[in-house]
Amino acid sequence: MCDVTDDAPARRCRGAVPTRDAGCGAAAAVRRPGGVRTVDPLVVALDVGGTSIKGALVDRAGAVVAGGAWETGVPHGPDAVVRHILDAAAELAGRAPDGTAPRGAGICVPGVVDAAAGVARWAANIGWTDVPLQDLAAARLGLPVALGHDVRTAALGEGRFGAGTGDPGHPGDPGPVAAAGRTVFCVMIGTGIAGGLVRWIDGVAQVDDGDRAMAGEVGHLVVRPGGPPCGCGNRGCLEALASASRIASRYRELTGTAATARDVADRAAAGDPAAVAVWTDAVDALADALAAVTVLLDPGAVVVGGGLSLAGERLTGPLRPALVARLTFRSPPPVRLSELGDRAGVLGAAALAWQVVERGRE
Amino acid sequence: MCDVTDDAPARRCRGAVPTRDAGCGAAAAVRRPGGVRTVDPLVVALDVGGTSIKGALVDRAGAVVAGGAWETGVPHGPDAVVRHILDAAAELAGRAPDGTAPRGAGICVPGVVDAAAGVARWAANIGWTDVPLQDLAAARLGLPVALGHDVRTAALGEGRFGAGTGDPGHPGDPGPVAAAGRTVFCVMIGTGIAGGLVRWIDGVAQVDDGDRAMAGEVGHLVVRPGGPPCGCGNRGCLEALASASRIASRYRELTGTAATARDVADRAAAGDPAAVAVWTDAVDALADALAAVTVLLDPGAVVVGGGLSLAGERLTGPLRPALVARLTFRSPPPVRLSELGDRAGVLGAAALAWQVVERGRE
Repeated sequence: MCDVTDDAPARRCRGAVPTRDAGCGAAAAVRRPGGVRTVDPLVVALDVGGTSIKGALVDRAGAVVAGGAWETGVPHGPDAVVRHILDAAAELAGRAPDGTAPRGAGICVPGVVDAAAGVARWAANIGWTDVPLQDLAAARLGLPVALGHDVRTAALGEGRFGAGTGDPGHPGDPGPVAAAGRTVFCVMIGTGIAGGLVRWIDGVAQVDDGDRAMAGEVGHLVVRPGGPPCGCGNRGCLEALASASRIASRYRELTGTAATARDVADRAAAGDPAAVAVWTDAVDALADALAAVTVLLDPGAVVVGGGLSLAGERLTGPLRPALVARLTFRSPPPVRLSELGDRAGVLGAAALAWQVVERGRE
Repeated sequence: MCDVTDDAPARRCRGAVPTRDAGCGAAAAVRRPGGVRTVDPLVVALDVGGTSIKGALVDRAGAVVAGGAWETGVPHGPDAVVRHILDAAAELAGRAPDGTAPRGAGICVPGVVDAAAGVARWAANIGWTDVPLQDLAAARLGLPVALGHDVRTAALGEGRFGAGTGDPGHPGDPGPVAAAGRTVFCVMIGTGIAGGLVRWIDGVAQVDDGDRAMAGEVGHLVVRPGGPPCGCGNRGCLEALASASRIASRYRELTGTAATARDVADRAAAGDPAAVAVWTDAVDALADALAAVTVLLDPGAVVVGGGLSLAGERLTGPLRPALVARLTFRSPPPVRLSELGDRAGVLGAAALAWQVVERGRE
């Protein structure tokens, strides 16, 4: 339902999905005392967007050994997209360092995704219907494969390897959040808005897909009854007030000036009255939505990601007190900025893969 | 946060918490072919309210073998309440049929409850703080004990034994909901409003307590920004529009006539304009809240319980189309009426007990 890459275009470089503890193409192979060369186990991870496919080989701690980007190939039709995905996965698998082989693969795709069945049910921007991507990739790679929804998988990435861990210095360490069996709600704000609740069950971070694979659609929470029209046909949805695209278009309506959402944040900070009005309205709407999330879900933390999170403290600074003001009977969860940025999807896909690898070993 | 017994006063009779398949005091002891008398395993279950404690001996399928009600004893202070709870639990345990002994106990209490630690943190209507009720009951009974929050435990009861099972004819059978690994959101409407999300994990119904034991507070979801004041200090909360007490008081404000919420439902059905206005507003507010729940949680079904659910189809009849009208991009989950009524809490406590018994066996 949501393209989170509005302000964060897909990377074009190959071998370029760096993590906090491993730069582009950094190897997970290490020399242990005694001179024996050992290699950490790896998985193949793919984040399929409408324009490009981001991919990486990732170890259990979230370190990237190799990465790349490929064209999705939507103009060539759904069959070509499936072929591009499988080719990208196979190419990555073949790039594993000598002495190791990937243990599994994780793939996240947009639209409606039946993760339990491993089927990509539908996606407007790709044009496919009921693609059994999990089985197709498993047959091509000879590995266990997990499939996930793009935004909820990005939430899982933040939960397992990013801002949800509660311990930025140790990306593979589940940290205090997981230690207490807690949950993290991630909201991803780009062209659209969607989110996901990540919970730790028996020490493993898992994302909640909901009963019909439609959980976390916080963008379509009504925060202004009768408010501005939303693309979904309703009025007053969060997405109609606080998405990066709506922030830009509302500013343009007020001023006649084209500007990105980040420009609006910058101009609001500089005191431009129209920018202040649009930005404040967006932050208030986001606070309304996160108050609803808090009251219903009681998450241990909230993580704000997607392109709009590049506004940083200009977003979270006013958001935190606005959330406090809306919660009369309880304190709010801490609000954190995404740590993974546009790598959240591919690292979430790695987390999906590690789940299926770990389950297979039980 | 919520007293759900507004229209459903606690039972005064002893041995009187009937289930669908076992009347007052019905025995779980059965004769098997060959003449050997066997007795199904049982647990002790207690639902502690501000006025009375409801208790029962319950088998794994939710059938009640013996039940009773005791005074909570709030006027005698928190120590007396704890004593009454432990005495009631011990009395019930002692009433198990010959040849069996309870396997565990479950207790649900109001207020803020740390289920993981087994501690009743705080309750305004009981006046206690940080009571380690789980350990106290375990020591008194010599059994494993689980503690839960009253409303979320009632939700668990509906999930495991009631309307959440999807199969009214077979109370112990998890039915189609559980079979698909799905979830049920229960909203309990009485003097206050609260709810809980029940999910099946590895075939076991579990309630989601949230990170700080405050999940499911749907009564404090803002559905009318700037609307009527709520007891929590905010405005426009669901509880300020749709609780049984607010429905009654709003009708009295309009007409000067005292009436219960059920009276208002009846008068609305008969065409009384003031009753229609109040009832329609309450149903609309509830639909707004359940739309938010659906968008965020994507539950497999919604169950409406608490005293207001006694209005039956007068509540769910208009609620279903109102929910459809609010969901533009997806269909709503089915909305069901509570099947357990004021027995949901005690059967939920039994479900908590069975969880701890089943975990101990792993």
